[in-house]
Amino acid sequence: MAKKEEKSELGITAEKDDFSEWFTQLMIKADLADYTDVSGCMVFKPASYAIWEKIKDLCDERFKKLGIQNVYFPLFIPEKLFEKEKEHVKGFSPEVAWVTEAGETKLSERLAVRPTSETIMYPSYAKWIRSWRDLPLKYNQWNNVVRFEFAHPVPFFRTREFLWNELHTVLATEKEALEEGKQILDVYSDICENYMALYGLVGKKTEKEKFAGAVFSEKIHYILPSGRVIEGPCFHYDGQNFSKAYDIKFLNKDGNQQYAYQCTYAITTRMLGTMFAVHSDEKGLILPPKMAINKVVIVPILFDETKEKILKLCKELEKQLSEFNAFTDSRENYSPGFKFNEWELKGIPIRIEIGPKDLENKQAIVVRRDTLKKEAIKIFELSKKISLMLKDIQKTLFEKSKKLFKEKIVEIDSLEKLKKIIENKKVGIVPLCKNIKCEDMIKYETKGAKVIFIAEEKVKNEKCIICKKKADYFVYSGKTY
Amino acid sequence: MAKKEEKSELGITAEKDDFSEWFTQLMIKADLADYTDVSGCMVFKPASYAIWEKIKDLCDERFKKLGIQNVYFPLFIPEKLFEKEKEHVKGFSPEVAWVTEAGETKLSERLAVRPTSETIMYPSYAKWIRSWRDLPLKYNQWNNVVRFEFAHPVPFFRTREFLWNELHTVLATEKEALEEGKQILDVYSDICENYMALYGLVGKKTEKEKFAGAVFSEKIHYILPSGRVIEGPCFHYDGQNFSKAYDIKFLNKDGNQQYAYQCTYAITTRMLGTMFAVHSDEKGLILPPKMAINKVVIVPILFDETKEKILKLCKELEKQLSEFNAFTDSRENYSPGFKFNEWELKGIPIRIEIGPKDLENKQAIVVRRDTLKKEAIKIFELSKKISLMLKDIQKTLFEKSKKLFKEKIVEIDSLEKLKKIIENKKVGIVPLCKNIKCEDMIKYETKGAKVIFIAEEKVKNEKCIICKKKADYFVYSGKTY
Repeated sequence: MAKKEEKSELGITAEKDDFSEWFTQLMIKADLADYTDVSGCMVFKPASYAIWEKIKDLCDERFKKLGIQNVYFPLFIPEKLFEKEKEHVKGFSPEVAWVTEAGETKLSERLAVRPTSETIMYPSYAKWIRSWRDLPLKYNQWNNVVRFEFAHPVPFFRTREFLWNELHTVLATEKEALEEGKQILDVYSDICENYMALYGLVGKKTEKEKFAGAVFSEKIHYILPSGRVIEGPCFHYDGQNFSKAYDIKFLNKDGNQQYAYQCTYAITTRMLGTMFAVHSDEKGLILPPKMAINKVVIVPILFDETKEKILKLCKELEKQLSEFNAFTDSRENYSPGFKFNEWELKGIPIRIEIGPKDLENKQAIVVRRDTLKKEAIKIFELSKKISLMLKDIQKTLFEKSKKLFKEKIVEIDSLEKLKKIIENKKVGIVPLCKNIKCEDMIKYETKGAKVIFIAEEKVKNEKCIICKKKADYFVYSGKTY
Repeated sequence: MAKKEEKSELGITAEKDDFSEWFTQLMIKADLADYTDVSGCMVFKPASYAIWEKIKDLCDERFKKLGIQNVYFPLFIPEKLFEKEKEHVKGFSPEVAWVTEAGETKLSERLAVRPTSETIMYPSYAKWIRSWRDLPLKYNQWNNVVRFEFAHPVPFFRTREFLWNELHTVLATEKEALEEGKQILDVYSDICENYMALYGLVGKKTEKEKFAGAVFSEKIHYILPSGRVIEGPCFHYDGQNFSKAYDIKFLNKDGNQQYAYQCTYAITTRMLGTMFAVHSDEKGLILPPKMAINKVVIVPILFDETKEKILKLCKELEKQLSEFNAFTDSRENYSPGFKFNEWELKGIPIRIEIGPKDLENKQAIVVRRDTLKKEAIKIFELSKKISLMLKDIQKTLFEKSKKLFKEKIVEIDSLEKLKKIIENKKVGIVPLCKNIKCEDMIKYETKGAKVIFIAEEKVKNEKCIICKKKADYFVYSGKTY
């Protein structure tokens, strides 16, 4: 990622339609992240990292109830281990960063920096699992992974290192595995929908796009204002593919050795970017209240005569509103207007302004970040009304996100139309056959749109938009990061 | 790390005096960690990783109150950045793992896998810090680091990858920096002493042993039963060394540009090993109650006639003792004796046994893990007595750890005596001069003991045990990991 010069303007100067420039400014000016001197990697600053910690906590709390335990496996994977599952290694090899030297020593075997940990975890699983009593085994880790892409990097969405959870489970039967799949996707959905206020759709990948080594893959998909589809939390059902490659066998209840069934799941830091991009506007960051660390900022309007009284009231309000992590911005040398802009930029869901008139009227001016609507509210009603207002912001953001998603989807029946809607930053639902060449042609013809997931497996007489033969399914097609 | 065959015996078969074998068995059999196919790296299994998460939470809670924020910087450091502070690069170069290839591409510049993050963080600090208003800046990260040592690896204590926090602060004055140093060492001390029940001593490193690039280094030191000193949490005062190398300047209140002062701090996963090694015994793991996830296990003694009633009582007790995360081991096919051994091995601080006689007498047999002392306690008194017992275990373990430490220390005045006590797995306090050659000689003569920290800077007429000239200080000398 090239180092960019910071603009001298405090606020965002780009329109949201100019997505790439707008998003970069949002990231830098709302103090979420920054470029570094390492090409393709970024710094998570406190404002974004704290939200990532919140996502982790939400997941962990739910995972724990499902009997999932956290572990930590090594970062490095010796080349010979990495190569055991043929499809897997083919899928990841182009992006693997290799350690070949340490100190002054050339290593006798290259070490992969994990792009994902199947190949380092599963030899241990094979060692630990003996009988049906050892199953299900559900180990999760929160870590950093490296996929050394050479495509143009985009902060949060496409970086060479990112953070995620990787949950790797082993089960005795396919039935249990598939049930678990639904359960975990529900956990992710709950967090993305009810906390991050993002509307998304679960969908199954085509054979071409599934995880390298899986039987099938399902992901939750989101759409950015730019029309790019974001592949969010995922579930890969591996069947016995890896258990056969890594010899994960167990003695079943009938007394026979059999290969186990496996699943993997992940949510990554790209969901931070998705949340920032979907909700925010040209004034800066907008956060769903449930994900905001501080939900309320209090800005005193200070004049010499009333200064002391107003600051005292602010302190009282901070206490009264402590459940919302309210804080007072009492900095000297900054005008109230400057402060309003700053906290709008940084996405505090609600601003409270208190001036001499408000003091007199026992009220406060309350401004919600999403609509910027102002309202005078009596002090004694503040807690209750702010609580309701935060719920309303949360709901409004989700509805907006749902509307954005729906507006981006167009059902069409020809390649020409698909090309056109892709140009217009939309996502198409098109009939397609399973021939991988037809899938490849979509990418070629649209200059980069891919088949994102299967919309519907039932077709009547629709024809594949590429080869014009009978279609096998309807698929979503659009550009992704 | 060589892959070891698991022993068929469930319990530990080595004496604690045979430390290395005992500790390896403890690690494997108490299900704390395991070897992997990556030389020098280990898996943190749920039992140890959960304790690491606890340490993180304890630190984070305290850090937050001190205005410290969590961030995340990239894993990779381009070689040219890495080399800016000369002492620093000299200190770390022999252990750096280098990424030189990605996919099929040979990189134009090598990327260091971070052994520590000064060199990737400080260029960003230089960019972000403009004036005294931006200070203090206190950013922390919890991450993985790699130091590719070629010495014999020891799980938890010396592994090529480990987990830690690295807190990097920037301050306007030396005074603030030194005050902060005390504050953060107090945080670490509090956790190690009052939670992990470990007695340790803060001590300043000699010039030879200080952190590469620091003005001085202080660490908290612990001693294992094997006589090895563990260098625990650390504070490195960097003065302006890095700020000059990385150009971290700020406009001070007088309107002048000046270089900032910097500190770094860390606590690592080796503290897990220290805690396991100091407290545990030949029956397995002993954990200070404050660090145990489950503090109480209930083992029912089941006979057909009373089975139902006893299991019902166990469920009631689980509820009554929920503040201790009590759980019932009601597994069939395992004898009570087997279960006793298993939970002793895995370090549950208190075991409750309930059989028909206890049911009749409205009592339970309570066994504390540290002393294995048994006691019959009336059911109605259980909560209260267990609470007291846990406190007593916590206290007893700390006292034992203090006693172990003190017993290991011997004041001596000659190299011959030092060699002898090192052979006897102890640590010496000896007079030494500041000549680095004398410090080197200690290592050579004792076959590996080093100068661990400065015990006392005031000396009378004592002579350096190596050159026999006037000593400059008393130092602790012993073997470390």
